[in-house]
Amino acid sequence: MTAPGKLLGVGVGPGDPELMTVKAVRALGKADVIVYFAKAGAAGNGWTIAAEHIQTSAEKLPLIYPITTEIPKDAPDYRKALCDFYDKAAANIATRLDTGRDVAVVCEGDPMFFGSYMHVHVRLAPQYPTEIIAGVTGMSGCWSAAGLPMAQGDDILTVLAGTLSEAELERRLVTTDAAVIMKLGRNLPKVRRALERSARLDRAIYVERGTMDGSRIMPLADKRDDDAPYFAVVLVPGWEHRS
Amino acid sequence: MTAPGKLLGVGVGPGDPELMTVKAVRALGKADVIVYFAKAGAAGNGWTIAAEHIQTSAEKLPLIYPITTEIPKDAPDYRKALCDFYDKAAANIATRLDTGRDVAVVCEGDPMFFGSYMHVHVRLAPQYPTEIIAGVTGMSGCWSAAGLPMAQGDDILTVLAGTLSEAELERRLVTTDAAVIMKLGRNLPKVRRALERSARLDRAIYVERGTMDGSRIMPLADKRDDDAPYFAVVLVPGWEHRS
Repeated sequence: MTAPGKLLGVGVGPGDPELMTVKAVRALGKADVIVYFAKAGAAGNGWTIAAEHIQTSAEKLPLIYPITTEIPKDAPDYRKALCDFYDKAAANIATRLDTGRDVAVVCEGDPMFFGSYMHVHVRLAPQYPTEIIAGVTGMSGCWSAAGLPMAQGDDILTVLAGTLSEAELERRLVTTDAAVIMKLGRNLPKVRRALERSARLDRAIYVERGTMDGSRIMPLADKRDDDAPYFAVVLVPGWEHRS
Repeated sequence: MTAPGKLLGVGVGPGDPELMTVKAVRALGKADVIVYFAKAGAAGNGWTIAAEHIQTSAEKLPLIYPITTEIPKDAPDYRKALCDFYDKAAANIATRLDTGRDVAVVCEGDPMFFGSYMHVHVRLAPQYPTEIIAGVTGMSGCWSAAGLPMAQGDDILTVLAGTLSEAELERRLVTTDAAVIMKLGRNLPKVRRALERSARLDRAIYVERGTMDGSRIMPLADKRDDDAPYFAVVLVPGWEHRS
């Protein structure tokens, strides 16, 4: 009987291909199967970052997210569609692992920090050997691109999703030293109001496409429109009046 | 007149030299001057990670932290000694930048996330061109080594220092989904009590030397002693009962 292959969650960093780790580059160059998440018709950022390091003989296995735009995100049907998708993805990966092939899953940012890989990991880790290759997170890429000292000493840093309610965002912002607000998109007006009400708007920096071409970095107070991609972030640095 | 050199904050990641980014390796290989923080008599982890990538002709400039063990950390004298140290460090770096040489400062983890580099950055960034090379944080290295899905969806993640009071730690732990507690050392008994009182002890994972040789990873509840290095962390994953 063949020993099973290894499942690797490979963090490829925030966008700039140079921000991949040496370990990730090596792992992608050796893996027998490369798995990446994508939307129908678009390869996705992870693939774009990873592509040049993949050996030509490797099998490429895209996992195409189900089309769920017509189902509200909090509906049971949406959760079921996603759950079925991850079940099927894990089963597809398992057939490769069972033949002794190592499978690398391309993860934007860091594998264990707000990403799709975790859904696959929790389904397969009980049965197969796994290895996680840490990556530079999107938020690190963004505050580095902005040249923004983020947190120091005993600063409390809170990572928030723009999908939280305005009241919740305000309450969290008032009680933290530093904050990262992810998942902006159409949540930006709400995030802006929460920052204003918590007296943090004057410190907030808006970062779009942090380490990629066409990045936009500016004080949020100077941003006149409410257009923001889903992956844009707002940074509230904790480091203030200190040296 | 010579154009000034560039100041680079180079994140070298959490310990495993393979977790350096491709960009950091290149930057260290090109810089004219390599600056690293160290304690008297010990080169420090950052240097150990970076050393093999540095060109032999580069000037090595160690910045030795002042000996302050006899001064309590919250005393004005301690703050003054550190402030003087950073002033002098910045002045030393400035003399190199003024001759047109590029200066890379080796930063463990990520440069803008709880590290000494920021003290130098805020002193020099107004006068000199700077570039920040994001790195894998210590916390990413730790939760990856532990194979621990950390945060997902709209989880709130809070980063806390073990130096906070027990009451503050408890209050923060009760109201967050996921938490990272850094700066353990002699704060471990206090951190343990705060986790117990906030009913988070059963989920807490202790990680020591995350991505380095001799790592120790275990449920905190199984750790019988209170010995912990300063750089050990406790992780409380937010991902729970979901898939």
